Amino acid sequence: MTLQEITLEQLNTTEFIAQQVEAISTAVGDELAINALSGGVDSSTVTLLGHKALGERVLTVFVENGIMRKGEPQRVVEHFKALGVPVQLVDAREDFFAALKGLTDPEEKREAITQTFYKTVFGELVRKCGAKFLLHGTILTDVDETVAGIKRQHNILTQQVIEPLLQLRKPAVRAVAKALGLSEDVYDRMPFPGPALAARIIGEVTPERSEIVREATAIVEEELADTDAFQYLAILHQDKVTGMRDGKRDYGLQIEVRCWESEDARTGSPTRLPFDTLERLADRITDEVPGVVSVTYNITKKPPSTIEAI
Amino acid sequence: MTLQEITLEQLNTTEFIAQQVEAISTAVGDELAINALSGGVDSSTVTLLGHKALGERVLTVFVENGIMRKGEPQRVVEHFKALGVPVQLVDAREDFFAALKGLTDPEEKREAITQTFYKTVFGELVRKCGAKFLLHGTILTDVDETVAGIKRQHNILTQQVIEPLLQLRKPAVRAVAKALGLSEDVYDRMPFPGPALAARIIGEVTPERSEIVREATAIVEEELADTDAFQYLAILHQDKVTGMRDGKRDYGLQIEVRCWESEDARTGSPTRLPFDTLERLADRITDEVPGVVSVTYNITKKPPSTIEAI
Repeated sequence: MTLQEITLEQLNTTEFIAQQVEAISTAVGDELAINALSGGVDSSTVTLLGHKALGERVLTVFVENGIMRKGEPQRVVEHFKALGVPVQLVDAREDFFAALKGLTDPEEKREAITQTFYKTVFGELVRKCGAKFLLHGTILTDVDETVAGIKRQHNILTQQVIEPLLQLRKPAVRAVAKALGLSEDVYDRMPFPGPALAARIIGEVTPERSEIVREATAIVEEELADTDAFQYLAILHQDKVTGMRDGKRDYGLQIEVRCWESEDARTGSPTRLPFDTLERLADRITDEVPGVVSVTYNITKKPPSTIEAI
Repeated sequence: MTLQEITLEQLNTTEFIAQQVEAISTAVGDELAINALSGGVDSSTVTLLGHKALGERVLTVFVENGIMRKGEPQRVVEHFKALGVPVQLVDAREDFFAALKGLTDPEEKREAITQTFYKTVFGELVRKCGAKFLLHGTILTDVDETVAGIKRQHNILTQQVIEPLLQLRKPAVRAVAKALGLSEDVYDRMPFPGPALAARIIGEVTPERSEIVREATAIVEEELADTDAFQYLAILHQDKVTGMRDGKRDYGLQIEVRCWESEDARTGSPTRLPFDTLERLADRITDEVPGVVSVTYNITKKPPSTIEAI
């Protein structure tokens, strides 16, 4: 397989889909394959290509790690069910929270999530199901980043890896996803990076703290759905600030909201949201999310900020 | 001395000043008095009343605790010098930072500042100078709060206390200050509560962290000086967030800016600053304050927020 890029302009989606289905089919033969679906556009596209090529001989799993957004695991499984693709929902929340217990360093948290996924949870599923092939949604940008020093983690598995999207970048993947019949929710999904809500929890990732940032995220996504912003998110801080509840001092939590204008995530600036919207966000988050007494809005450009918190 | 309030409407400033000067003069007789000047309207007013009554027999000290705003100690001393009032500037930064070392709990920090001021620094000055009288800027609102359970700290000193402003609330104090010839900077000064910048440092108060919030505060005060806002401030967080400097990941500091619309500090809402102003604030703070990669703006009402951070 060559790494020559297929640009969006060069891409013929019908042809590309037919070629990749054929390639997967030929490679796997009569064996079994497995793939992990996260709900993002890359893994969703690979899931459909795999299903077209192998039917029931590919096992698609969605791992519930406890740090997904509100209702996300169920929503993804339902979406694929409606497309005729069965997805096995694996509840691995205990494994992830056990691995994250006591960790506050961002790199250690990230590493714990990766290791738990590949070594413990998905690794075990791969071994159990007897699959000899692993379908993976690596895209060309991931390869660039691998060359730049970020290791592709599925290398720790011994299965043969098939990467149908290796010649594409994001815009081309979106076109293939659309051609495969995935909904706009999927092919035009707002970025939601791998560490999921853990990238938005400063300090330890516990079930309780995940629930707080999940609720705040749901409010932010609901209130800002009509904006054309590139990405918007809620961050739970570890710092506590003084607040007031029922006339009494209440030392409570702070949520930070970010909403970005950006073309490609490399640079960005805060969306100039109306203050009516900002105040409604603060009102709802302090009213509806237990323990939160303070809400801020990030006003920094990227750089020096980054899109996510940690 | 009765605690009958003198309202702004009832107040005759010329008469009030004459009465209080006479009262101080009579009480102190040929003895010495001392007072601590913070630069706020209450202590500034008492300083001038004391000076009118006692001339050189009152010692006015300004305690530099290391958590004042940029240039504040020098500015206050100069202001009074121009009015013909000598002020002794006492550098007690080491005492305060030693007392604050290792403390992160807001109440413990507050208590350390109070104790260091009254027991160590000011207490020692009082004993050394041989003053039998202590002039203090207690106002009627402080008395209300004392009755409500907040102890007046100068009670730990054994000197006789003279409180010329005991019958006034803030608007009346401002009128007296103006009549005494204090500048608008003083009589209409934005609130800056006792714990000074320590109320705006989440986590440990060190010389380095004080310097960071002092620089950020100077930028916020400069950029927002033309607004009619009730109060504006910068807060240094303990949480670190990911940033980017020169293309590299930089795990750095976050500053939170607050700017309040309020009548009396009891309730408030965030000032709807133009985004041009917000972005200029973020640009300047991330450019000029070492280590800061992220700036937020607080969008919460009071309640459930409070004006200051901790």
